[in-house]
Order: sequence, then structure tokens, then C-alpha cells
Amino acid sequence: MNLILFEKSELALPLSRGDPRARHILEVLRRAPGESFDVGLIDGPRGRAVLAQIRDRDLVLSFTWEVTVPEPELITLIVGLTRPQTCRRVLREAATLGVAAMFFVRTERGEPSYADSRLWSTGEYERHVRTGVEQAFATRIPTVAAGMDLAAGVTKAGGRVRVALDNYESTTPLHRMPLPAAEPLVLAVGSERGFTDAERGLLRDAGYQLAGLGERVLRTETAVIAGLSVIKASTGRWDGAPPVPREPGRCC
Amino acid sequence: MNLILFEKSELALPLSRGDPRARHILEVLRRAPGESFDVGLIDGPRGRAVLAQIRDRDLVLSFTWEVTVPEPELITLIVGLTRPQTCRRVLREAATLGVAAMFFVRTERGEPSYADSRLWSTGEYERHVRTGVEQAFATRIPTVAAGMDLAAGVTKAGGRVRVALDNYESTTPLHRMPLPAAEPLVLAVGSERGFTDAERGLLRDAGYQLAGLGERVLRTETAVIAGLSVIKASTGRWDGAPPVPREPGRCC
Repeated sequence: MNLILFEKSELALPLSRGDPRARHILEVLRRAPGESFDVGLIDGPRGRAVLAQIRDRDLVLSFTWEVTVPEPELITLIVGLTRPQTCRRVLREAATLGVAAMFFVRTERGEPSYADSRLWSTGEYERHVRTGVEQAFATRIPTVAAGMDLAAGVTKAGGRVRVALDNYESTTPLHRMPLPAAEPLVLAVGSERGFTDAERGLLRDAGYQLAGLGERVLRTETAVIAGLSVIKASTGRWDGAPPVPREPGRCC
Repeated sequence: MNLILFEKSELALPLSRGDPRARHILEVLRRAPGESFDVGLIDGPRGRAVLAQIRDRDLVLSFTWEVTVPEPELITLIVGLTRPQTCRRVLREAATLGVAAMFFVRTERGEPSYADSRLWSTGEYERHVRTGVEQAFATRIPTVAAGMDLAAGVTKAGGRVRVALDNYESTTPLHRMPLPAAEPLVLAVGSERGFTDAERGLLRDAGYQLAGLGERVLRTETAVIAGLSVIKASTGRWDGAPPVPREPGRCC
């Protein structure tokens, strides 16, 4: 947790000692009264919080916010539903790398039961997304939905630029595709065994270009990280970024 | 397991029914006598094996090899020792993406006890590397060593082109660095909390350039995948790769 995130509605209230963020402030960051730490306002700016008071039941915090708000992300990820353990990793990793939305879609080669996992029904997925965003030192929480079919995901995702990873019928590697810098872009990645012919047809009809990532066969979660990395680099999102401020105890 | 790997010394012998590869052939691939599947000779060519006979104690296989041998990889990875669970992922993911060697080094911000994990002392790490290579449909097994300090890792890695990921003092994003296509290259990635000033000095003295991957803070394993992906793309390793042959049941 590199950045502790708060909802706007929480800012005027004390933070319960039972809240995982309070435990993190006291037990991991080991902050004493008067000391400060990095915070973020969800979908808003980053800032600093001062631990004003430690009380029996809660912590009193005071916040100072930066003027600039991190830019919104432009990439939407469509990914075939896979085993929940793989989806957990995709949720965290895509949230860390930065996307606007993630749609986990049913595909012909995915198990239909994957959509019924407790990961989705209990809201557990939200925790993984938040962990990924906090890791990234970011504030924007991607929209997530799961269980629609691929066609519905394609419609929901929209996007001006549409790319699908495919080992079998791609003719251009992803990093050779001209990807405009400031356009909403959708990246579609298949389930564990990739897309079927019918799904490739559906994607092509919807204007998707099929892209490759070399000849080595990647797992879904590896392909998601590799694909997002190449897109971030190609679209200039990794250009000229300032180094993060130095903070002892911040990861990486 | 997209490609079942064999040592040269194993080719003339029957495969014990107790071997995980035998179970994979019978229970996952469900091959019957006379049917074939994809195989690889470690550090050699890919090919096909025919299941000639199923006997009580073993399987009799016959092999046919392709003429071309996959090219050797040129990237060596130096990575700070982290929690064993993170190292397992790095082992698998880097082996899937393709490296010549991985050196897991002690760093000032890593826990010294990480080097004593059973992951390293029992040889468990070899299993993760092999899983990663089999996933990739590749045959070359990276060299792995763990426990040396960063200076020793830098010496051992050598390399003509040397790059270290650093969030704090990098001035150029990795994808903007001119990386020659056919030169041995070393990528160094820190432990969970990155490199110290002294380690940055050591790396710079050894000719390492500090590179960035945007302003979002990535976990070690995410940075490894993202960094290797950008290098593979930048050095042309993902150009013109033929699609993998179509095989029902192959992952991704």
C-alpha cells in the first residue's frame, strides 16, 4: 500500500481503528501523532495526511491535497474469464499498470462456471483492484464488470482503437501497430486457450486488429501485463514521467 | 505444459508412469497408442513424439525432431531477492518470456533470510523455470543462481548493454533507450523497495543506464514482465515471429 486511498465522503470523519488503513498507518508505517504519510482521494488528487490524534476507537487525520489530479487512463481491457486465481492477478496487475475499465467476458473456450466464482459475487474483486491502484501510487479506480459474453463486452468497451492479442492469425506484432497517443483504446485478451474462429470473426467485424507478442506462448496474465506495457510505451504514456517522490518505506 | 521437454539422455529410455510427464500425456492430453504430441529437446529443437506403447510401468515413445533449433536468448536478468512467492513468479514469468540467465541477488533493502528459502536450497526453483519454458513452447532452460550480492551478480552477468530499472533517478524511459538488436543485454530490477544510493552508484560504475517505466510504482514481478516485454519489442525479438502451429488443447 504505497498510497492510502480515501473516498470524499470519508474525509471529514475519524478513521476507525478497525479499518485496515488505520492498522497500516500504525503498524506498517508506524506513524506517531504529528507525522504524515501519502494519501490519495479516489478519482482525485494525491496528497499528504497528518495523523493528528490517536484515540481509543479511531484516528483523527488532516489532509492536504495537491492541485493537479492524475490524468484519466484511456485503455479498456477485455479479458476472457479464467480461473479465479488468474483473474485476481489480472485485476491487481491491470489496476497497477493503469486502465480505465476491465471487462471479464465469457468466451467459448472458458469454463462457464468461472463467472459464478465468489470473487465476483461477493465483491472480492474490488479489493484486488484497490490493492493494485494503491501499489501504483495512483488514485483512479478502474470500472470492473464480469460475466457478459464477448459480444456484449465489445459493445460495452467501445473505443476508437481496438486490438486483440492472437497467437494464431495475427500478422503484425503489437509494438509495430500505429497506436495514436490520445485515443480511447481497447485491448482484448483471450481465455486460457485463446479465441475461437467465431470469436476472431466477431472481433474483426467489430474493427479489432489482431496483434502478436512474439512466438512464445504466454499465459493470460502475462499477456495482459506484456500487452499493456507495450501499449503504454507505444502511446507515450511512459514518456517524460517524473520520478515518484522519494519516500522511505515506499515499495519499488 | 504446452511442450513436454526431454533431456537428450532420456530419449532412448521408456518414460516411467510415475513421471509427471507420463501422467500429463495420459490424463491431460489423453493420448492413446499411435497418437502424437508436441515435445522439445532441452536446449535443442522442438518436435513430435508418438506414444508407441502404454505398458504397466512405463510409456514407449518415438521422437521426430525439427531441423531448426530455437535461437538462444540474449537477455540476462538480475533481480533483487524478494519473498519466495514473488521469486517463484519471477522464475516462471521470465522463463516464459525468455531469458538466457537469471541471477537473484542480495540487495541492501532485501531481507537476508530470503536467500535461505527452501525454494533455493531444495532445487524447487528448477521446477518453476521448467514450467515457464514449457508454457512458452520453448526448449532453452535459463541458467539460474541465487544468493550472491549485487556486485557479484553484475560481474557474473557481464553483458554489452546494461540497464537497471529505477523509479527515482532514471531520466529516460526504457522504451526510448536505443537497445541494439543482437547484443547481450542485462536488465537489473531491484528488490521490493528498489535500489539504495550505494547500489545505484555500483550500477552506474559498472556502466548501467537507469531506465524508467512510467510514473506508476510497479511490484518487482510486474516490473520484470513489463521490462522484458519492452526490451523484447525494442530489440526486434517480437518482429516477424510466425504464429505458433495450431494444436487443439494448447494453452493461449
